[in-house]
Amino acid sequence: MRPDLEILSQGEEVITGQTLDRNSAWLAGQSVDLGFRVRRQQTVGDDLADLTQILRDIATRSDVCIVTGGLGPTLDDLTREAVSQAFGLPLLHDPDAMRQIQAFYAIRNRTMPDINRKQALLPEGATRLDNHWGTAPGFYLQEQRCLFCFLPGVPSEMKNLFQQSVRPRLAETFTLNPGQLVTLRTIGIGESDLETRLAELVLPDNVSLGFRAGLDHVETKLWFPADYHAAERQHLAHQARDLIGDFVFTIDGLGQPSGSLIDVLDLELTARAWRCIFHETLSFGQMASKCAGRPWLLGSYCGIDPATLTATDAQIMIRQQLDLPLHQSLAADHAVNLTVELQTPTDTTQYHHRLTGSSTYKQNQAAMLSLNDLRQWLQQH
Amino acid sequence: MRPDLEILSQGEEVITGQTLDRNSAWLAGQSVDLGFRVRRQQTVGDDLADLTQILRDIATRSDVCIVTGGLGPTLDDLTREAVSQAFGLPLLHDPDAMRQIQAFYAIRNRTMPDINRKQALLPEGATRLDNHWGTAPGFYLQEQRCLFCFLPGVPSEMKNLFQQSVRPRLAETFTLNPGQLVTLRTIGIGESDLETRLAELVLPDNVSLGFRAGLDHVETKLWFPADYHAAERQHLAHQARDLIGDFVFTIDGLGQPSGSLIDVLDLELTARAWRCIFHETLSFGQMASKCAGRPWLLGSYCGIDPATLTATDAQIMIRQQLDLPLHQSLAADHAVNLTVELQTPTDTTQYHHRLTGSSTYKQNQAAMLSLNDLRQWLQQH
Repeated sequence: MRPDLEILSQGEEVITGQTLDRNSAWLAGQSVDLGFRVRRQQTVGDDLADLTQILRDIATRSDVCIVTGGLGPTLDDLTREAVSQAFGLPLLHDPDAMRQIQAFYAIRNRTMPDINRKQALLPEGATRLDNHWGTAPGFYLQEQRCLFCFLPGVPSEMKNLFQQSVRPRLAETFTLNPGQLVTLRTIGIGESDLETRLAELVLPDNVSLGFRAGLDHVETKLWFPADYHAAERQHLAHQARDLIGDFVFTIDGLGQPSGSLIDVLDLELTARAWRCIFHETLSFGQMASKCAGRPWLLGSYCGIDPATLTATDAQIMIRQQLDLPLHQSLAADHAVNLTVELQTPTDTTQYHHRLTGSSTYKQNQAAMLSLNDLRQWLQQH
Repeated sequence: MRPDLEILSQGEEVITGQTLDRNSAWLAGQSVDLGFRVRRQQTVGDDLADLTQILRDIATRSDVCIVTGGLGPTLDDLTREAVSQAFGLPLLHDPDAMRQIQAFYAIRNRTMPDINRKQALLPEGATRLDNHWGTAPGFYLQEQRCLFCFLPGVPSEMKNLFQQSVRPRLAETFTLNPGQLVTLRTIGIGESDLETRLAELVLPDNVSLGFRAGLDHVETKLWFPADYHAAERQHLAHQARDLIGDFVFTIDGLGQPSGSLIDVLDLELTARAWRCIFHETLSFGQMASKCAGRPWLLGSYCGIDPATLTATDAQIMIRQQLDLPLHQSLAADHAVNLTVELQTPTDTTQYHHRLTGSSTYKQNQAAMLSLNDLRQWLQQH
């Protein structure tokens, strides 16, 4: 059983949607990699009653809680006060913390503002977490079931404190067993079709299956226990790939190099020393944009179709054709038939796709499907 | 008193830190703008017991809860089941929902997989929210204090459903006093420089100022009380614009038509009946991609510079030039000097920019800055 971990962040700028909570996402990724089960992420605004109640709830239900933000010197930094109220702990002045905060200002030739004194207060029973990257010290506190780790909200301070102090402490305190993840990436097939194709896959009880749809591709994920036999893991991943078919463009987590669709094209085209030209209609710049800076891409054209194109030394030319004019194809209510014509040194192949959805969705899908057609051709020849 | 609103998202990819929860941030911003107080944002993984408990808690403490994700057809989509268990409501088959899902597949010439039948199940007493952009219908449910709005997790579907259905319903159900928001959108100037330029702006106590940095542009926001005098509001907004200068490409909230940078270009170019060609280096397809389908865009070229370009009937040509080769310019550790040359019927003007950051950031900024140079030229001539 993986221990339960929660992440709590405090701050008006996140709760009002002005800032993306990148701290929580980062901490979640780190915690999963360490071997925890992340149960909840929460964000609250500057509200003492809400914060107090949440801390009490977490103390009874999770093994670890990482709290970010609310340790600053200003009025809306309520975390210390909330801890004090939630668990009936007086706030005590920590002379070592005070000296560190004063030193932080002295080294910068600045006078410490009076309001920063507040940052040297710690709840009774807490262990100070020295912050060498800013003024606010963090602290640990064990309350009931839960080890709370309070960190500042400034991303660089938070990350440094986590890596230098929290991570080793968690690894020492808990028996963690992080497990192995294999990811199959596909283009051109949806989540429900993937699940249907994988219905035949017989999974042992200790292996789990999940899907994640992104804008560019869909991921099929297989989670294995840490001690799962490597050959068995590979066997199961290959079975999954065979059931899904040629939609899979890469597999992560089996030790071979993997990457994005463009990385796969990179390998194939560099091995052949071939160069490409794109003539984009529906994707209108998206193919070029995704492949920017790759040495095998000679260029890309949207709109006008220059007659001079045949004079280039490209080995691959991809041309998109539409059944409707571009401005109609980009209307959200029109389904579009896209033909992708692939001219190679040996032949010309056509691929057909039907696209629906918003204009940006169709534009992006047209780019991904065209590049995936090229990937399929290259891997089959 | 503003009504309390919470946001709950479900999905392993957010809870494990693989994906940033942009949905919740977007919904929080919309809810604040509507006049709600956002109390909490929460994310849970695929755990039926946790989800059930959270739904029960929210039902007693908030007026509105917007839930995203977990409405898909696969096993880990648990939202319907959790609602059923939390509130003791049987799941009922909705024939209209079933017909809509079948039509979604029929229009794409595909057979509906059997597992999608699950998406036509709704808790007893729920009101269906028709989804014209995907397969999963959303639904409303009033439980105790709380109006729950369940939306799919796919961002485009979620946003469309919110704008078309949820927003008007919330505005109708609650007495909201959102105040007035004026937004100045800028390109080419950062948050701290904006703050410095606006230091002179004298704000009454009941008006507040904030900034929101996006990938494409930065927003400066002025919040006014609902009964604030319109002429005073406009006066303050124009003062802010004058302090910021020509970086402002549009002002939202003063009653005039506004929109994106591309919308502003649309107005200017359509009025002149002028047509454009882009020759992109650093942005490599991003300019074309952002302007796809606009009738004034004749075409765009990346990579090769065709000699035939001068023969076109474009009135505007934008050419990007770099001080480094493209593949070096796209390296994350290189600062790049970008020259944007604008050829118009009357003259040729050059604009200079210095760009740093990741390859995708520089690529996108190059596109936005080039288009903004065109906007400035058009508005000045």
